[in-house]
Amino acid sequence: MSNFLIAPSILSADFARLGDDTANVLAAGADIVHFDVMDNHYVPNLTIGPMVCKALRDYGITAPIDVHLMVKPVDRIVPDFAKAGASYISFHPEASEHVDRTLQLIKENGCKAGLVFNPATPLSYLDYVMDKLDVILLMSVNPGFGGQSFIPATLDKLRQVRKLIDDSGFDIRLEVDGGVKVDNIGEIAAAGADMFVAGSAIFNQPDYKAVIDQMRAELAKV
Amino acid sequence: MSNFLIAPSILSADFARLGDDTANVLAAGADIVHFDVMDNHYVPNLTIGPMVCKALRDYGITAPIDVHLMVKPVDRIVPDFAKAGASYISFHPEASEHVDRTLQLIKENGCKAGLVFNPATPLSYLDYVMDKLDVILLMSVNPGFGGQSFIPATLDKLRQVRKLIDDSGFDIRLEVDGGVKVDNIGEIAAAGADMFVAGSAIFNQPDYKAVIDQMRAELAKV
Amino acid sequence: MSNFLIAPSILSADFARLGDDTANVLAAGADIVHFDVMDNHYVPNLTIGPMVCKALRDYGITAPIDVHLMVKPVDRIVPDFAKAGASYISFHPEASEHVDRTLQLIKENGCKAGLVFNPATPLSYLDYVMDKLDVILLMSVNPGFGGQSFIPATLDKLRQVRKLIDDSGFDIRLEVDGGVKVDNIGEIAAAGADMFVAGSAIFNQPDYKAVIDQMRAELAKV
Amino acid sequence: MSNFLIAPSILSADFARLGDDTANVLAAGADIVHFDVMDNHYVPNLTIGPMVCKALRDYGITAPIDVHLMVKPVDRIVPDFAKAGASYISFHPEASEHVDRTLQLIKENGCKAGLVFNPATPLSYLDYVMDKLDVILLMSVNPGFGGQSFIPATLDKLRQVRKLIDDSGFDIRLEVDGGVKVDNIGEIAAAGADMFVAGSAIFNQPDYKAVIDQMRAELAKV
Amino acid sequence: MSNFLIAPSILSADFARLGDDTANVLAAGADIVHFDVMDNHYVPNLTIGPMVCKALRDYGITAPIDVHLMVKPVDRIVPDFAKAGASYISFHPEASEHVDRTLQLIKENGCKAGLVFNPATPLSYLDYVMDKLDVILLMSVNPGFGGQSFIPATLDKLRQVRKLIDDSGFDIRLEVDGGVKVDNIGEIAAAGADMFVAGSAIFNQPDYKAVIDQMRAELAKV
Amino acid sequence: MSNFLIAPSILSADFARLGDDTANVLAAGADIVHFDVMDNHYVPNLTIGPMVCKALRDYGITAPIDVHLMVKPVDRIVPDFAKAGASYISFHPEASEHVDRTLQLIKENGCKAGLVFNPATPLSYLDYVMDKLDVILLMSVNPGFGGQSFIPATLDKLRQVRKLIDDSGFDIRLEVDGGVKVDNIGEIAAAGADMFVAGSAIFNQPDYKAVIDQMRAELAKV
Repeated sequence: MSNFLIAPSILSADFARLGDDTANVLAAGADIVHFDVMDNHYVPNLTIGPMVCKALRDYGITAPIDVHLMVKPVDRIVPDFAKAGASYISFHPEASEHVDRTLQLIKENGCKAGLVFNPATPLSYLDYVMDKLDVILLMSVNPGFGGQSFIPATLDKLRQVRKLIDDSGFDIRLEVDGGVKVDNIGEIAAAGADMFVAGSAIFNQPDYKAVIDQMRAELAKV
Repeated sequence: MSNFLIAPSILSADFARLGDDTANVLAAGADIVHFDVMDNHYVPNLTIGPMVCKALRDYGITAPIDVHLMVKPVDRIVPDFAKAGASYISFHPEASEHVDRTLQLIKENGCKAGLVFNPATPLSYLDYVMDKLDVILLMSVNPGFGGQSFIPATLDKLRQVRKLIDDSGFDIRLEVDGGVKVDNIGEIAAAGADMFVAGSAIFNQPDYKAVIDQMRAELAKV
Repeated sequence: MSNFLIAPSILSADFARLGDDTANVLAAGADIVHFDVMDNHYVPNLTIGPMVCKALRDYGITAPIDVHLMVKPVDRIVPDFAKAGASYISFHPEASEHVDRTLQLIKENGCKAGLVFNPATPLSYLDYVMDKLDVILLMSVNPGFGGQSFIPATLDKLRQVRKLIDDSGFDIRLEVDGGVKVDNIGEIAAAGADMFVAGSAIFNQPDYKAVIDQMRAELAKV
Repeated sequence: MSNFLIAPSILSADFARLGDDTANVLAAGADIVHFDVMDNHYVPNLTIGPMVCKALRDYGITAPIDVHLMVKPVDRIVPDFAKAGASYISFHPEASEHVDRTLQLIKENGCKAGLVFNPATPLSYLDYVMDKLDVILLMSVNPGFGGQSFIPATLDKLRQVRKLIDDSGFDIRLEVDGGVKVDNIGEIAAAGADMFVAGSAIFNQPDYKAVIDQMRAELAKV
Repeated sequence: MSNFLIAPSILSADFARLGDDTANVLAAGADIVHFDVMDNHYVPNLTIGPMVCKALRDYGITAPIDVHLMVKPVDRIVPDFAKAGASYISFHPEASEHVDRTLQLIKENGCKAGLVFNPATPLSYLDYVMDKLDVILLMSVNPGFGGQSFIPATLDKLRQVRKLIDDSGFDIRLEVDGGVKVDNIGEIAAAGADMFVAGSAIFNQPDYKAVIDQMRAELAKV
Repeated sequence: MSNFLIAPSILSADFARLGDDTANVLAAGADIVHFDVMDNHYVPNLTIGPMVCKALRDYGITAPIDVHLMVKPVDRIVPDFAKAGASYISFHPEASEHVDRTLQLIKENGCKAGLVFNPATPLSYLDYVMDKLDVILLMSVNPGFGGQSFIPATLDKLRQVRKLIDDSGFDIRLEVDGGVKVDNIGEIAAAGADMFVAGSAIFNQPDYKAVIDQMRAELAKV
């Protein structure tokens, strides 16, 4: 993997041809498969669960799968996703009564663990768990709602988290999700992100490789 | 459609090739696509939501799609599935505070409406809604849990519902879901069912047409 | 009170002049004040609570106040309404885990107790509580949703409950709520109801007395 | 065990000396230990859980332990109680979305399974599960609330369940809980019960054996 | 409007004459109508909903109506209040899973948006939303519980929020609610508040104008 | 009481002989009885409730009883524990919508009040309640889950809270719970704790006094 990771969200892929579409985006240069799980409770939508994740593994997808749980509560479904082939499992701290325990549970199940921050969620949830995190995901839109664009205040928040990570000395990815495009990926990387979720920005284009190459070109300038 | 409808549950299909697998099972003679929605709250699993339904329509599936909502509460997601191309929407009466209202909501959104009965759920929920139903679905296993076989007491329950439907004079399908196979489909039809969900019994076989033909042969004997 | 009781629902009254409007409808011949409480959880609306009930008593309303709780759970708010001057308190059996207990609680607080049945709710909830009921309220529309008309199947359900009451030998009012108007009140009474909630049918007319007189005239023909 | 089983509820025992008090009541002639579990959600009280059950087994209690779960939801705690030494596990049908599944879960964990009926709960929950039941428990008071006496309508309900059991041909205990005393145990047995929970009626007396002997004497007259 | 806004809480008004009482307090010099919405879930009380708000508009109240939602969840009722004539809608950050989204929703519905802080709620919820706020409301008593007096620690919290607002450069009102009286309004204003909710302090007095004039006199000294 | 308080958690005591076991550990030199209440909702376990607390008082235990509520919501059970003889009642701030109110409720019921912090819970919940606290309890394991050891990051968190307490000038105990043993109690005390919960470390040893003496010896070195 390069230092900057591009993680297409398959929520924008073609669910009728998910294996092929995922393979194509990886062949086009993507690093990681981003997998958005919504339960119609924590967010007002229901998307895809562990069986779909397993189907991608059975199809032959070997890239890391980065599962973003927009579910509440969290713990029961963690082992299901681990068994289904998840590489990363991230959750919202407000969605678990026992954040430290859930992080441990993810790791006991052999996955990398992350916390996700809604646009308005304060960073104090990070105060006592930096040593247990593999990834911090900042939402730059509100998860589960359509038609939004990148919230500019995320740039400052990214800079704050970048500093927290660097000060901690731990090896933690800083991921961003929501409205990331060729136009702004450079600015977002400059603010500290090193893992970029993009959905329609990639899958709504005819040529995935062209978009990803453009993103890499912007990232190369940072 | 024939009088007996075979409705393969795509929960057993290949989610990496869902369009093709669904098209194949329809080409093999299936009548309807059964679509199982689990929310990790009403049942301990999370499967697929409206976006997957819409992808099947966009792929070109034109057969009826029969959505079984294993979600609680129900109302918020009904319009989403109607917009995504659902033909039938069925729900569990215990999962809605306002069963009559939810049935109306499904119809206002242009779909056929059904009630689903868990193995132990009493039939009294039917007392005042027969005029609003297009389908009654009896679960012959517990929804959301794997590895179960057909619960024999379902046969008596099917006979009771068949009588209720016939006495009512309404045009209501009697559907059954769980452990339906070539071996028992005849007996189940004889008890009154006329719409048969089958998952692994079809999708785990190499030749979908062979299984469906065998099912039709058994049904022809009833 | 006459044998037939007319209970205007103040949900259709003028909340800016609630004392006067309530007094006027009583002066026009109504028997009882019907008071609809919605909590934005059991139904998707929030209306009025105990303080409004108390304000009516402080204003000088002395007629019985018939509180219909569309709330879940039920028990916590019962003493509040009793203190605020409620005469009857009715609730939905699905909204209390302990129906017998809630009925006792209402009576211990000095009020008459009732159960309310949604259009699709089966009557089996009556099986073991007839001796504890002062009123049975059948909803002839779905509570908490606007713009509905009288569900015709209610007539049969009224006849069934009328028989249950008569067979029981207990002194229980049979109330109906939803779409009751001058046009259909006679038919509804003939089916067994003896307590009639009417909202917009009364309050949206310029002359409350005229409407109530017409209703009485229809009832006199039964 | 005799045909009539006496099951003292240790909720009325001395929790500071629970091993001795339980052993004493068994030595005085009781057949079964009744164990009331409340979770402060399904009922407004919190009592004792699996660790207390296990402590009784470790102390040396070998009599059957009859666990009455007044908890919601049910499934998660079932294996805990099985491991802790429970013999019977009973639950309220309203407290599980999947009654048939929960009954199976209890049996898979090696325990006998039961359903509990609140005073107002209709018997329709029995319609499709008689073949899976080892015990039916009728509450003759409202569970989780103190200071109540035997609800007389329970006698008729007992007679109805006795007939259902006899007609079914299955070997199912008919248990009753709430306000059972020397004075009324004969009448209750005559109505069909064969397993009697008694709490304060036994534990609040100085001589457990005297009470239990009196109960047996009353039962012998039936 | 003056720089200091006085917002009488109509929870202390006469609900039987709400139009007149509200008009009177406005005629007496109040600036804004404060409207307390409780749902019997987020707080143990149920008060008034959108229909009462609309009745005030229909009556002819044209002053801003400041709706304080003590409900959980928040989103469903926001459009109802907007349609009913609300000017401001404020909510508790703990009551929405998606604070940023709820703020946007309020604004999309044409209202000004606010966050409310319980006495113990930390200010970190403000970290990433200052640009979306029109008002910050600090509770100086616990909402939904009666008979409380002003919590002195609120003064320090007001000073902190005043500094946050001033540093932000945004035009945000700083409102306070709970135990505000003639005696302490000056001190509260000195700590940074510029919008003052008062309920019984105004409505329990015979002469609204006298109280409001006294409050203005105290404010004039700040 | 000495300056350092040792609070054995009776969750590790023998529930069949709870009176004796508790008396023995107090006779062995313990200062306080720590009482862990789990409700199977806030944590996945159910332990002991108010009746067990009362039984200890009736047995003759006069030492302070320190109740740690791992329940959600909190308020309803507070008066029950106060009546049952609790001395301290502590709860998790995430488990109450109205933290300030719950603290007041505990004090109105005559008990000392505390807040408990899960390992990942930020300290911002302390910002506005220091004047209302008698104890701050830091969890050094995740409550409700077995087989865990002391989380080292707790030491830094203890130092931060110690500073907050000292700066506040209030008389607040700093309690720690989870994996406390003879080996690490000195280090934990050095970090600022002055009240130590220990469960299996004491009750799983044959000689309670020996362990407690060793703990005191370690504490004497601090």
